[in-house]
Amino acid sequence: MDDLKISRPGASAVNAVKAVLFSSFGNRFSDNATIREQHGHTLTWTANQPPDAVVYPQSTDEVVEIVKLCAAHRVPVIPYGTGTSLEGHVNAPLGGISIDTSMMKRVIAVHPEDLDCVVEPGVTRKELNDYLRDTGMFFPIDPGADASIGGMASTRASGTNAVRYGTMKDNVLALTVVTANGEIIRTARRAKKSSAGYDLTRLFVGAEGTLGVITEITLRLFGIPEAISAGVCLFPSVKAACDTAIAAIQSGIPIARVELCDEMTVKAVNLHSKLGLPERPMLLVEFHGSGAGAKEQAERFGEIAQDNGGGEFQWTTRPEDRSKLWQARHDAYWACFTLRPGAKAIATDICVPLSRLAECVEETQRDLAESKLLGPIVGHVGDGNFHVNLLIDMGDADEVKRTEAFLERLVHRGHAMEGTCTGEHGIGQAKIKYLAAEHSQATLDVMRSIKKALDPLGIMNPGKMVG
Amino acid sequence: MDDLKISRPGASAVNAVKAVLFSSFGNRFSDNATIREQHGHTLTWTANQPPDAVVYPQSTDEVVEIVKLCAAHRVPVIPYGTGTSLEGHVNAPLGGISIDTSMMKRVIAVHPEDLDCVVEPGVTRKELNDYLRDTGMFFPIDPGADASIGGMASTRASGTNAVRYGTMKDNVLALTVVTANGEIIRTARRAKKSSAGYDLTRLFVGAEGTLGVITEITLRLFGIPEAISAGVCLFPSVKAACDTAIAAIQSGIPIARVELCDEMTVKAVNLHSKLGLPERPMLLVEFHGSGAGAKEQAERFGEIAQDNGGGEFQWTTRPEDRSKLWQARHDAYWACFTLRPGAKAIATDICVPLSRLAECVEETQRDLAESKLLGPIVGHVGDGNFHVNLLIDMGDADEVKRTEAFLERLVHRGHAMEGTCTGEHGIGQAKIKYLAAEHSQATLDVMRSIKKALDPLGIMNPGKMVG
Repeated sequence: MDDLKISRPGASAVNAVKAVLFSSFGNRFSDNATIREQHGHTLTWTANQPPDAVVYPQSTDEVVEIVKLCAAHRVPVIPYGTGTSLEGHVNAPLGGISIDTSMMKRVIAVHPEDLDCVVEPGVTRKELNDYLRDTGMFFPIDPGADASIGGMASTRASGTNAVRYGTMKDNVLALTVVTANGEIIRTARRAKKSSAGYDLTRLFVGAEGTLGVITEITLRLFGIPEAISAGVCLFPSVKAACDTAIAAIQSGIPIARVELCDEMTVKAVNLHSKLGLPERPMLLVEFHGSGAGAKEQAERFGEIAQDNGGGEFQWTTRPEDRSKLWQARHDAYWACFTLRPGAKAIATDICVPLSRLAECVEETQRDLAESKLLGPIVGHVGDGNFHVNLLIDMGDADEVKRTEAFLERLVHRGHAMEGTCTGEHGIGQAKIKYLAAEHSQATLDVMRSIKKALDPLGIMNPGKMVG
Repeated sequence: MDDLKISRPGASAVNAVKAVLFSSFGNRFSDNATIREQHGHTLTWTANQPPDAVVYPQSTDEVVEIVKLCAAHRVPVIPYGTGTSLEGHVNAPLGGISIDTSMMKRVIAVHPEDLDCVVEPGVTRKELNDYLRDTGMFFPIDPGADASIGGMASTRASGTNAVRYGTMKDNVLALTVVTANGEIIRTARRAKKSSAGYDLTRLFVGAEGTLGVITEITLRLFGIPEAISAGVCLFPSVKAACDTAIAAIQSGIPIARVELCDEMTVKAVNLHSKLGLPERPMLLVEFHGSGAGAKEQAERFGEIAQDNGGGEFQWTTRPEDRSKLWQARHDAYWACFTLRPGAKAIATDICVPLSRLAECVEETQRDLAESKLLGPIVGHVGDGNFHVNLLIDMGDADEVKRTEAFLERLVHRGHAMEGTCTGEHGIGQAKIKYLAAEHSQATLDVMRSIKKALDPLGIMNPGKMVG
């Protein structure tokens, strides 16, 4: 399967593509060095590898034009949303053309009776929810960043409320995709379910732009719940917190969010937001339902928490209090920097079966301590998914080395517990070796066969995942 | 893509395979004519095309042995569960070996804390739920038949409670698959979510055995709800019934089941079960929740039904009354035969966006009347999916012709409303032409590329879907 590897195209091919794009797209084309650098990887510690040029299409047909042109000259195509990938998805290791979808921002249709909508890939999740505000509906998936829907689909993103609403795989009904040979396909119709052929929708969701460019997404929407209750509870240990979440889910409480902050994260949040929370493992929980339902869920959760040694479960249905509570969680990523100003952050996203989460988090905390690394932990407990937000001094070669070794052990630990190296960030460049560790050779070969079948020239986002 | 078509293997190839299988599997091998016929298609009007022989493996390794042998001799492989496919999935148009999974019935593991289990493909849904009875968990997907989990995964099956719990695509966490070249792959680990590579799980779910043989399935389970309420409500029209379901879903009531029976179905149920229900469109509804929650949901639903012109919503939480209610729904398929004893039944499964369901059902009822065809309708209203249970006198050539024309129009109607020709039964042999009508040539080409990449010899369940 080495024939998946393509080489960097020659300057003449790149120049030919650039000339045509410039003449077609005018000021929606750029090969300015700053713009190019902005379209390479900019987050975490993966090195920046800028594309040869950036183009801003406004329609599926324009994407077809770009892809066909690139295919004719064997020039790589790198789809770009908001650049908030954490794994180097938007880098251009072989150069090529970055297709920036930020000018494809139309909400094409909203269907309230069907609880769905059709959007272009450049719409961000917050823009979509702003657009939907007066409809009584919302789109739940919330990765930390205000990512584009196209990027979220491509990385199979999720966030804090996947435990209730699922991930992108569960909430994309259909896609329009420009394939590697410049054909437009629609993966499915707008029905809520279908058994008509291979599930191309879910093949392209999470394909990281390596099989085609997503140009239209049909999304499931949800009614804004009549009532929301949210609360916070402190626990003597990570295990007590996880056991509470497990028991609550088992008992059928339809928890909307259940987020773990470890002692270190609580400390950071205290510093950042001038709160005085006891520095113990904490669960932030949210319930959606009818007025009575949201109240009942919160009360039952409180009982379960106490049974597991938790402190008092303080909850509220007042929007302003809820907002304050979740602001602390959303600020956690930034709050962590107060623990070590100037540090570089790397967020991991191991995901293990729920029953192993406490053990995995606690072993990881011990490993961090032994490795003399600073890594506050937050977790989407309902999914068994947690982030170590490593704070690294990139100038300290020994620390960088210790971090690399820690990351290897973390992934190995997750794998040993039947987990995955990535719950929601994707493989990109940074996790290619972990993908190989996660799957057997035969499984990787199947993935590579698909890549080769759908992108025989290897031009779609090369150097990512299996390509 | 014509090279996907393979020809029937010669007698010597088939005999060579049979000889080896007989020597390896002994009395777990059969080429008896009756057994072979039982393993060809037996339901609805698709003709029976028996395989050359049937073999009953007991492990993944034995499946590998069979597939490798068949691949070496270019002999087709047809995976077989319980034979309850409605679309000719188990037929052997080119002969070959039927792999009957009924001796792969182990429940390999149950993980209560993770709400999942691992099963072999021959376990049926009822067997699984019997096995789980004392655990407080259940597996919700319920196609009409007591199908095998392997078959349900392969057809992307669903049933009455997909509106709440999703379809097989949502409830399979991972698969072990024997690929067309006899390799064993595992599509994912046991974590609840993952972004690690192409979503092979969902590629094989719904692939109808055309890409490999599923030999192990990791399934999501759910806690048995604390309380269940269920009820029945009559409506002046199909539209009023559908509008009620839409409004209830929009308002956020987490309906577990909402099933439509049209006038004709109510008549059949009356005849079959000696009930005296008014012959009007009827919704059967079920709610899962806490004691207060299930009650509140039922009460709110009743109000919404009345707002939409529905009659009194009679509901109950008593298990024996609920069972009686759902028995009537489950009997509907058989009850329909009382309308025309001796008729052949064909169940369609168009699925459209919810907003179009009433229109689609009403147009279909008119079409049935004009075509002088008898076809009671039941629908999974929450999904926009409905079944016309056509009752046909196969001896009447004109009626058969009218039925074929009706089916064409029905699929065209569904497509015109952004729906799919199959919500849950799959393509198999019977819907190949509708698959072609549903997708563009470019989309079909992508599906065929995948088929060719993963089954280059074309031996996996040939003559189905795109093969």
